[in-house]
Amino acid sequence: MGKTKLRMPKRTYQVRATRLREQLVQLQVELKHVPFKVLLILAGPEGAGRGNLLNTLAEWLDPRGVETFSYHAPTDEELAHPHQWRFWRSLPGIGRIGLYAGSWYTETLREEARSTRALGHIVEEAERIRDFEKQLADGGTLIVKIWLQISQEAQGRRLRTLRADPATAWRVSDEDWHHHRIYQRLAETARLIREKTDRPGARWTIIDSEDERARDLEVGRFLLTQFRQQQRRMARLVRAARPRRVESLRPSGLRRLQTLPLDQDLTEKDYDSLREKWLGRLNRAVRATLESGRSIVFAFEGWDAAGKGGVIRRLTSAIDPRDYRVIPVAKPTAEEKHAHYLWRFWRDIPRNGRMVVFDRSWYGRVLVERIEGFCREDEWQRAYAEINEFEQQLSAHGTVVLKYWLHVSHAEQLRRFREREATPHKRHKMNHEDWRNRRQRGAYEIAVGDMLALTDKERTPWHLVPADNKRYARLEVLRSASRQLEAALEQ
Amino acid sequence: MGKTKLRMPKRTYQVRATRLREQLVQLQVELKHVPFKVLLILAGPEGAGRGNLLNTLAEWLDPRGVETFSYHAPTDEELAHPHQWRFWRSLPGIGRIGLYAGSWYTETLREEARSTRALGHIVEEAERIRDFEKQLADGGTLIVKIWLQISQEAQGRRLRTLRADPATAWRVSDEDWHHHRIYQRLAETARLIREKTDRPGARWTIIDSEDERARDLEVGRFLLTQFRQQQRRMARLVRAARPRRVESLRPSGLRRLQTLPLDQDLTEKDYDSLREKWLGRLNRAVRATLESGRSIVFAFEGWDAAGKGGVIRRLTSAIDPRDYRVIPVAKPTAEEKHAHYLWRFWRDIPRNGRMVVFDRSWYGRVLVERIEGFCREDEWQRAYAEINEFEQQLSAHGTVVLKYWLHVSHAEQLRRFREREATPHKRHKMNHEDWRNRRQRGAYEIAVGDMLALTDKERTPWHLVPADNKRYARLEVLRSASRQLEAALEQ
Repeated sequence: MGKTKLRMPKRTYQVRATRLREQLVQLQVELKHVPFKVLLILAGPEGAGRGNLLNTLAEWLDPRGVETFSYHAPTDEELAHPHQWRFWRSLPGIGRIGLYAGSWYTETLREEARSTRALGHIVEEAERIRDFEKQLADGGTLIVKIWLQISQEAQGRRLRTLRADPATAWRVSDEDWHHHRIYQRLAETARLIREKTDRPGARWTIIDSEDERARDLEVGRFLLTQFRQQQRRMARLVRAARPRRVESLRPSGLRRLQTLPLDQDLTEKDYDSLREKWLGRLNRAVRATLESGRSIVFAFEGWDAAGKGGVIRRLTSAIDPRDYRVIPVAKPTAEEKHAHYLWRFWRDIPRNGRMVVFDRSWYGRVLVERIEGFCREDEWQRAYAEINEFEQQLSAHGTVVLKYWLHVSHAEQLRRFREREATPHKRHKMNHEDWRNRRQRGAYEIAVGDMLALTDKERTPWHLVPADNKRYARLEVLRSASRQLEAALEQ
Repeated sequence: MGKTKLRMPKRTYQVRATRLREQLVQLQVELKHVPFKVLLILAGPEGAGRGNLLNTLAEWLDPRGVETFSYHAPTDEELAHPHQWRFWRSLPGIGRIGLYAGSWYTETLREEARSTRALGHIVEEAERIRDFEKQLADGGTLIVKIWLQISQEAQGRRLRTLRADPATAWRVSDEDWHHHRIYQRLAETARLIREKTDRPGARWTIIDSEDERARDLEVGRFLLTQFRQQQRRMARLVRAARPRRVESLRPSGLRRLQTLPLDQDLTEKDYDSLREKWLGRLNRAVRATLESGRSIVFAFEGWDAAGKGGVIRRLTSAIDPRDYRVIPVAKPTAEEKHAHYLWRFWRDIPRNGRMVVFDRSWYGRVLVERIEGFCREDEWQRAYAEINEFEQQLSAHGTVVLKYWLHVSHAEQLRRFREREATPHKRHKMNHEDWRNRRQRGAYEIAVGDMLALTDKERTPWHLVPADNKRYARLEVLRSASRQLEAALEQ
């Protein structure tokens, strides 16, 4: 591998590598017990030795704690989802290290080399990955991005040495030579991408790669120090966190909730005729939307026993069973608990031409998790912006997002709780948590109000549905869903 | 909903439905504590009320225990994988009920109605789903397949009634009328498909759907009885299971293992030159294979400390990091334990143009699981055939499957164990299980021998690699891999 000035002696390397390996293995043991993932992204020009470095890391690290990922040109399933879906779907498991071999960055540079991409497109992609990395980093993921640096001269030397020996000539491809010739241009683009994606929590680090031994040790040590820093950062955040009493951030939302009239009346007879009318209209709107290649996401939130299940069943009775899925959102599993809270929802986002109905949703972050203190204050405070960004990404892709809060009075809820407990086949729906949540009505009203005020956007509005009268609520959802879908079709 | 002779009175229905719901919810509670999944597949002609039935079930069952699935025309990701990949990827979680709304069957019938498919193609598909259902059923999954029957006359009556009322006319599509006109032809095809896929463990049950109330109750009750039967069947199997001492099924395999010479010699110098030569040849063979749109699967098995990791690192050093993934196979997670043992491997099967290296594999079923009694005798006995079928499905798709057993002598293994324990950064590789496995060398040799004899197929042969000499073993893998890939390319 190419002559280089003052190369580290093999002996020195071996001594240091041995010590480093012990520490890295120790890191992996600790990682199993800390609630964060590690993303190690390696990029750099040909000849910088990304492949060799990956092999060294594979040798140093315990393979059971490592997953490798590569981004290629998006598949049609990926193209049929919002852009960031492909990033969310390729993340390491809990307490594991994700090695991004052919990372998104490398792929973009290869494309650039074939100059099949406009610079504007690259910048756009860079901004997407930056937003994605920001959400992960804010969520506590450690992102280590390393750019392996090598001069054009050293690159040429290395390629020539490989080519000279018949046994190693195969390692040098025509593409390598092409990249060598346009070294400057690629370096320029790389610099631009790094600049666009260099943000707190996802900084780029440039490591000189002429001396492979020195490079491998430096990368390993850097990973270690970053890991220690992250541990301290997490510990500080946890120490700093202390429960506060729930106070309204946006009283306007609370007022909107509390002033909602709940005394609607609707006879069974009127309901039956109106229902079919609106089911028909909804059916046509949904079909038109899906056939136009767009997707639909329903998110239902509401008080316990507000009747979400009934509403969803009426709604779906108008839809072809092959076109939709209902996702009941329960407490997160162990795996989900350690993942970013949006991950499980990204997983279930529909592809173009499909519809998904979430029975409870990502808003749990600013409702139950806020009230019960399942997440820190800085986390739920940040969530409003993250959720708006998430929904913005969906609607930017053409997904129609419909959000409903089913509102029942404190008295009506009590009546339904008692009825459930008195009905054998409904009893399973009740547990002590329902009663505990009920006692916290005041705190929840504040959280719901803040949610309504802070996440009510023009393209992803909240529908506040009076639900003391079940028939009225069901009809109201059919009406507003039809209207929002029809409006979206006209855009 | 169309007049029908002697329809069940609403009151009777409600009383019975109430009792049924209690039992179904109870079923779901028990399901959480039994190690099997339930697949409920609903099919039948338009007007049989699949949609309404799904809604009723959604109301009766606790939604947190239900997942719905549909099969549509395969996506390109699905087409880029072996046929059955799409079935394996859409399965319910542990102790959950999978509702197959637009099941594979329905999709095929729709296609047939548009007569875009040749009958031969349908039969082929039917055979694939049959094999898939067989593996699941053998694995303990309860598969309930219900065909909702309705006469052409009743179908017409129902469609006309819906059309007559402007409020419900939208429920009848042109496709429905088309299907009504070709009722006989579709019924014929459906009968053929049911016949092809009606097998023990995945029987079809025809339920008359003219009276919707009677139908809903019958489906619910049928699900209950099937569930109880499955519970008893599982219990019987578990009772019947008793540990037996390990005896050889195929002595020929054991002889092949025990007579393998392990005294190969290879100097560092010879190794270095030969390695680059064969790395180059392997690199070309892999590139050619992937570029031809095929995929590659490596499966490495061998004694503890046989040097699998080292072999894999040498192997991959010749491959572009973006083209392959190494999957270290550890003990199954809780989720994986309850899934079919092949599920986790199906999940990681590469798409066309990619390569996956399994560090340990599905053969654990007939090795550690057999020896340690982690599965019942009937399970590991069946596994040889299931694994052959699995690998056959891969190679039928064009995937090249390369299987290696790295063989070290009992003495050499001991030397390596001691070395590992003496080396700080290797200590983590050792645990008491390695010593326990070592004490069972005899039993394992029998299991390995049976594996070699029963799963050594022409297109998926076992490569038995002498590994007392690490350099020789690494070279041997490079050689045989290059040759098998080159041979596959000529086919």
